Amino acid sequence: MPSEGTAQGIGAGAMLAILRDGQARTRAELAQLTGLARSTVSQRLDALMDHRWVVATEDSISSGGRPAAAFAFNESVRVVLAADLGASHARLAVIDLGMTVLAERAAELPIDGGPEATLTWLVTAFQEMLAETGRDLTQVCGVGVGLPGPVEHASGRPVNPPIMPGWDAFPVPEWLGERLGAPVLVDNDVNIMALGEHWTARPEVDHLIFIKIGTGIGCGIVSDRRLHRGAQGAAGDVGHIRVTSSDVVCRCGNVGCLEAVAGGAAMAAALRAEGVDVQGSRDVVALMRAGSATAAQLIRQAGREVGGVMASIVNFFNPSVIVIGGDIAEAGEHVLAGIREVIYSRSLPLATQHLSIRASELGDRAGVIGAAVMVVEHVLAPGTIDQTMAG
Amino acid sequence: MPSEGTAQGIGAGAMLAILRDGQARTRAELAQLTGLARSTVSQRLDALMDHRWVVATEDSISSGGRPAAAFAFNESVRVVLAADLGASHARLAVIDLGMTVLAERAAELPIDGGPEATLTWLVTAFQEMLAETGRDLTQVCGVGVGLPGPVEHASGRPVNPPIMPGWDAFPVPEWLGERLGAPVLVDNDVNIMALGEHWTARPEVDHLIFIKIGTGIGCGIVSDRRLHRGAQGAAGDVGHIRVTSSDVVCRCGNVGCLEAVAGGAAMAAALRAEGVDVQGSRDVVALMRAGSATAAQLIRQAGREVGGVMASIVNFFNPSVIVIGGDIAEAGEHVLAGIREVIYSRSLPLATQHLSIRASELGDRAGVIGAAVMVVEHVLAPGTIDQTMAG
Repeated sequence: MPSEGTAQGIGAGAMLAILRDGQARTRAELAQLTGLARSTVSQRLDALMDHRWVVATEDSISSGGRPAAAFAFNESVRVVLAADLGASHARLAVIDLGMTVLAERAAELPIDGGPEATLTWLVTAFQEMLAETGRDLTQVCGVGVGLPGPVEHASGRPVNPPIMPGWDAFPVPEWLGERLGAPVLVDNDVNIMALGEHWTARPEVDHLIFIKIGTGIGCGIVSDRRLHRGAQGAAGDVGHIRVTSSDVVCRCGNVGCLEAVAGGAAMAAALRAEGVDVQGSRDVVALMRAGSATAAQLIRQAGREVGGVMASIVNFFNPSVIVIGGDIAEAGEHVLAGIREVIYSRSLPLATQHLSIRASELGDRAGVIGAAVMVVEHVLAPGTIDQTMAG
Repeated sequence: MPSEGTAQGIGAGAMLAILRDGQARTRAELAQLTGLARSTVSQRLDALMDHRWVVATEDSISSGGRPAAAFAFNESVRVVLAADLGASHARLAVIDLGMTVLAERAAELPIDGGPEATLTWLVTAFQEMLAETGRDLTQVCGVGVGLPGPVEHASGRPVNPPIMPGWDAFPVPEWLGERLGAPVLVDNDVNIMALGEHWTARPEVDHLIFIKIGTGIGCGIVSDRRLHRGAQGAAGDVGHIRVTSSDVVCRCGNVGCLEAVAGGAAMAAALRAEGVDVQGSRDVVALMRAGSATAAQLIRQAGREVGGVMASIVNFFNPSVIVIGGDIAEAGEHVLAGIREVIYSRSLPLATQHLSIRASELGDRAGVIGAAVMVVEHVLAPGTIDQTMAG
């Protein structure tokens, strides 16, 4: 079928977009909704059924006479492979187009092993998980990957990622695409977490900020229900905003960065300096839970430092919701209280009166859900559907 | 004509949107671009011509035979009334749909005279300007107004504006709409300046920040080519971000706000404390131009303070362009140098490598151009056109 002009017109992809709300519709309803001729509607439905995006069902609310045929989006026909890769930890999932998680796996996987080792492991794991769910590669419509560093969105390649030796400019989409036979989308891990949290837990919210406090600190930004990636895909890098006149040197080369005083690595270092045996941000939270007043105090103070930066950002951006995620968010009210304290004291009342500041609802799953959302939004975009069906 | 389903389909409004690029098109071209039947295309063109949105012309590039009729957007058919109201100064313009300024006027107009006095003056001035251009109220398709305070975008009403006594919740759109007989859109003055600068000078840019440094300090934000107003329309209020540990009390009740150390009013106060006779931000710039080293130093330091706040915002938002406007921007390189100095020293290299930091190209006109852009985008939106034509 012709694909010219479908960006402006009503192609098969746009018709599928109408059906994505889950409601089955008859030919007559689709003709009315689109303004297309009945014959054109039938032609596009046939094409969508050939590709199994749509299934025929029966119109259950037909008013008398024989029931008219109705057509519905077939959300289980294809699956997405989703991966959230952190500094040392990976979480994978197989998810269908209705966002149901069919299989899930978590593993220790050091990202500094380099791209080929990491991605080879990923391909094998995905193949095993597909087999577990009785699916195969022909049913995979896309792969979504979150990486712990800056990613150029258009090419899906990491850009000078500080904690990922060997990954700079590595062609992740091409490498994985060859082995998995599907389009691959790559983004920064915090961006996909923001997408996941927004799509699943807060679809009604226009402006949301997801801040991850782990080893480092970064945030994902949703403006007008869309991810704001910025001009170089570098938006949300709040970990290197200056917070104090202290002389703490940050790994970025500047002094007084938020991350250098409030990140999990900084807190662990502060505890080690006092002779406590901790490695990373998870240990700091575990210590707090075990009753350490020092750890609790560090976490509360880290919350205040994050709150100081977010207070400025609330004035600038005026979000409806700030979601706190990452390992340190597991400390719950200790970190939230510090953040709220400073935001309510420093930001403008107009911007805070309806502001919600909360812990992530998805927790560890925010990344894989977000990676799947990114893929589904791309694969099911009307233009992509039309292209796929023409090819 | 029916308006059902046009949000998804190709109504007359969507067809007009295609013609807004200025290119004339034949019925056949429009049928191909939209996927609509030729008869539907003709029906919609007739409706658009009835309302004079579209004019028939001849297809100059027809290949042999008699020339086919072609259809073009009629950009001079209607005009927009645009007003940029500041604390003490107003600028008005009559602008056509191709964004040509047909008449322009500037006047001293104290906003603290209250809404009825100010808007009564505005109505009279607009009527005089329309008469000058040989137009009348029947040709006005919309009115755009910028106000120097927070505005709830949906209702167009000021929300607790600090320097506008009597304006809180005043129904500006209804009041003006009754007298001018056209839809009225109201927004914060810095938002419309950002729109104007983006639309006219930088249409290719996705992410732009316009920062106005006048008596106070505020910014307008363009994300993904659209104005980011925030959840309460309060986005961009950077004047009250904390910049120092100084104990300067701001009019907002907090201490150390950017505006309280780097706004025009703060600079003028600092000069008066040294016995210099200055009133506002324009006097400070005039003094610098007359050779005052103290004024130049104050302006440079104000640039550094603004740069400190913008450095954080560059990390968070990753814009392509930062435009500096307002009275203090007239100081040119003195203020730009201070801003650039701190941004390049504090922001991440990835976010600054292609960042452009410049003075406004539109200068005093940014507001009225932006007010007109706001109206044109609303009036010519496909949904609005379909509604207008159905009603």
